[in-house]
Amino acid sequence: MSAKKPLILVVNDDGITAPGIRNLISVANELGEVVVVAPDSPQSGMGHAITLDSALRADEITIYDGPQKEYSVSGTPVDCVKLAVNVILNRKPDLIVSGINHGSNSSVNVIYSGTMSAAVEGALERIPSVGFSSLDYSWDADFNPALPHIKKTIQLLLKNGLPEGVCLNVNIPPAANAPFKGVKVCRQANANWEEEFDARKDPRGRDYFWLTGKFVNYDKGNDTDEWALKNNYISVVPVEVDFTAHHAISTLNNWEF
Amino acid sequence: MSAKKPLILVVNDDGITAPGIRNLISVANELGEVVVVAPDSPQSGMGHAITLDSALRADEITIYDGPQKEYSVSGTPVDCVKLAVNVILNRKPDLIVSGINHGSNSSVNVIYSGTMSAAVEGALERIPSVGFSSLDYSWDADFNPALPHIKKTIQLLLKNGLPEGVCLNVNIPPAANAPFKGVKVCRQANANWEEEFDARKDPRGRDYFWLTGKFVNYDKGNDTDEWALKNNYISVVPVEVDFTAHHAISTLNNWEF
Repeated sequence: MSAKKPLILVVNDDGITAPGIRNLISVANELGEVVVVAPDSPQSGMGHAITLDSALRADEITIYDGPQKEYSVSGTPVDCVKLAVNVILNRKPDLIVSGINHGSNSSVNVIYSGTMSAAVEGALERIPSVGFSSLDYSWDADFNPALPHIKKTIQLLLKNGLPEGVCLNVNIPPAANAPFKGVKVCRQANANWEEEFDARKDPRGRDYFWLTGKFVNYDKGNDTDEWALKNNYISVVPVEVDFTAHHAISTLNNWEF
Repeated sequence: MSAKKPLILVVNDDGITAPGIRNLISVANELGEVVVVAPDSPQSGMGHAITLDSALRADEITIYDGPQKEYSVSGTPVDCVKLAVNVILNRKPDLIVSGINHGSNSSVNVIYSGTMSAAVEGALERIPSVGFSSLDYSWDADFNPALPHIKKTIQLLLKNGLPEGVCLNVNIPPAANAPFKGVKVCRQANANWEEEFDARKDPRGRDYFWLTGKFVNYDKGNDTDEWALKNNYISVVPVEVDFTAHHAISTLNNWEF
């Protein structure tokens, strides 16, 4: 391994064997020294969860041959980043890349997404980070049209870095829509899920519920990620996690607590 | 049940039997019709996780006598809110109260906190919501000095509501510091955890790791929640979840994607 190569940490939330991360590793191998630290099981919807009540395992394994080193972790995507940075890697990574997620992480999905939580954790640790997601949920999604764009974005990140505390949320239209129109830098759309629980009875007559829902975009702006994706652009949203609603502070200062 | 009473949904992340939620229920019972929908097991550190890969249970139970109705849910705090609003409650709640958490959820902890994720989910569903946390991690924490402040905050929320999409993150100094100096409306401090993994070997010689860490406040401002709490004030941070780093959009627009 050349000392000159940038160190790229690869993470995801679909689990270390997912085709999405395999594609991302192949791109990362062209650009740097690659270490994969990814969950041993699917972690979709885990948000920014961390493991406090149980211990973590990190086992070195080989999934496919290649120059990358790989570790399978018994925790969440955020656990993977924390373990990688603090235990597994012998130097701070130059870049954290998360994904490629099987499915969209646009707009409000950023808060539920394990893929993006890994990138956000990177940003919190002041490491340039990016999450890539494809708008194709299927396990055998075709990532090929996305790969040149992902490679370009990684090259730009290695060259330019990012403002401190900021990471990128990159969503890519499905392969069927290729060639894509280009890349739009966007804000997160104001959208949300309208939940619909699928209520069933088990063989013993007890109720149980599956979470389902319908995605609704309330945002008519043409500067949002939803607009970009609907118009066949790749969306790039710079993300940071100051949760403070600064505009509400003056209102609350008038309350008689 | 009087139709005039506001409907208050009570949630937490320490689990439905925790002393913190019992104290919160007792306050809520004085102010409205109370329905408790809380996790059947501890969910600390679960962030905004939702359950996608397994089904959910919601069992009506009685923990202590009282006018409240209670449901024990097999999922995360966010699952609890979604199930409550969409399946269990027969009308939209007037307020969601989460906690009282055993331990701080100030500054960056808001992103890891199950307590706050329930409040944030409420805000996403356009329901006035608040998370209460005490800076005492112990299971037998004394919540008594906090209760009058919590009651006052709930009364203010029922009277004033909140801007759409905003919820409150309320942190309360430990009982030993009572009487508190008052309430400060704050922004989230720029702080983070420096992780330290406790590496051990199991009886079969395999490595495992416990996540631990040291909380570090990088923020010297006197308008932050960390400043308020250190100076024996209750901190109130208005929270919303636009993750967009708006200030970074113009920079990224200069990249040659």
